[in-house]
Amino acid sequence: MSTSEKIYSGKTKDLYALPNGNVRLVFKDDVTGEDGVIDPGANTVIGQVEGKGAKSLAMTDYFFKCLHAAGVPTHLVRVDLDQSAMEVRRAEPLGKDINGAGGIEFICRTRPWGSFLRRYKQYIRDAGQKFDYLVELTLKDDERGDPLINEDTIVALGLLSPAHLEQAKELTRQVCRIVEADLREKGLTLIDMKIEIGLVDGEVVVIDEVSADAMRVMGQDGNVLDHGTLYEKLIG
Amino acid sequence: MSTSEKIYSGKTKDLYALPNGNVRLVFKDDVTGEDGVIDPGANTVIGQVEGKGAKSLAMTDYFFKCLHAAGVPTHLVRVDLDQSAMEVRRAEPLGKDINGAGGIEFICRTRPWGSFLRRYKQYIRDAGQKFDYLVELTLKDDERGDPLINEDTIVALGLLSPAHLEQAKELTRQVCRIVEADLREKGLTLIDMKIEIGLVDGEVVVIDEVSADAMRVMGQDGNVLDHGTLYEKLIG
Repeated sequence: MSTSEKIYSGKTKDLYALPNGNVRLVFKDDVTGEDGVIDPGANTVIGQVEGKGAKSLAMTDYFFKCLHAAGVPTHLVRVDLDQSAMEVRRAEPLGKDINGAGGIEFICRTRPWGSFLRRYKQYIRDAGQKFDYLVELTLKDDERGDPLINEDTIVALGLLSPAHLEQAKELTRQVCRIVEADLREKGLTLIDMKIEIGLVDGEVVVIDEVSADAMRVMGQDGNVLDHGTLYEKLIG
Repeated sequence: MSTSEKIYSGKTKDLYALPNGNVRLVFKDDVTGEDGVIDPGANTVIGQVEGKGAKSLAMTDYFFKCLHAAGVPTHLVRVDLDQSAMEVRRAEPLGKDINGAGGIEFICRTRPWGSFLRRYKQYIRDAGQKFDYLVELTLKDDERGDPLINEDTIVALGLLSPAHLEQAKELTRQVCRIVEADLREKGLTLIDMKIEIGLVDGEVVVIDEVSADAMRVMGQDGNVLDHGTLYEKLIG
């Protein structure tokens, strides 16, 4: 891989261009958080946890296998666990910002939790309410706290065509159902998750990672599992 | 009106129940703002401006007449300018919070401006972009800064049926088009506006007020008009 060129350094991954046109994602041990507390949803790197990158990749590998088994397309070509790296097809992320970075994040919720609860607290009649795979869309923008955006606005700003938006939403629900079903077999409950979607050869596919960093999972005691515990349940 | 009973005291209006089953809205001179600066979009009353209530009512009267002329239903029965009051049919606001208060606000934008620009700055390719009457929905909740909400969530939380939501969005666009056309005749440009919608006898109608407090209007010099200036242009 000596001929590969680094094209992007993200908060938790570095990207390299491969000679065959694909991209190599190398998972780092960096963790994000705020005020010294690890929070995968936060936008600032606060330190490193040894083995974190390898575990994130192992879980992405695990979930991508579930998706492939169910016929859901992703950008994954192959995983190299020893190198904490995966090779993926080059995808065009959906909804880039004016600098060609950023993108739309697709959130799927099975119940009110976290930021959703904080935002809509006054309007949630039933605290135990379940959602039929409710999709929310946010824009990647660290400085503005990843703002929520509605579908009409996505289309009005030319970030996505109505057809791709509908396909991406359906893909999001599909991924959520598959992950939820897999976790349920292990006695775990998926609360919500976030994925990124891109276009590969004009087809809408799951990109980036599907890992514990981008989902909330509840154990049988009703508590949300941390990254390490979820890893133990799935892989360890 | 001595037999009327006060049922609600809002930031800019008081509501009284009338013996005939209707409601009397009395416009106050209170103005909202922050740090001593008047801002109709703010949620805190910072003082009073003499004549403000009467002017707001006169403009609501003006715009409701435009709406009625175009066949758009509102809850208005009659306006009593001398008393700064209007009589309206009792409406059920759309999307009440857990205390039976709050509601959905329907925003219509003809171009990016204000909070929209602040939220999506990084994703607006063309600063001069025009929108085809783009609708955004927010929830009235002072404490949480009137959070944005998407349509799927409105329906998932049971705040509105899909049919009423679609009707309310179309009504919002209709009102925006009518107000925009009227302002254009006076050399003014509507940037965006906000209305409230309620159900009267099961029908979706415009409620509350349609006033300068709930719209941004640009003069020929490209500046946004303040409340008093818009009043002069329309009524004075």
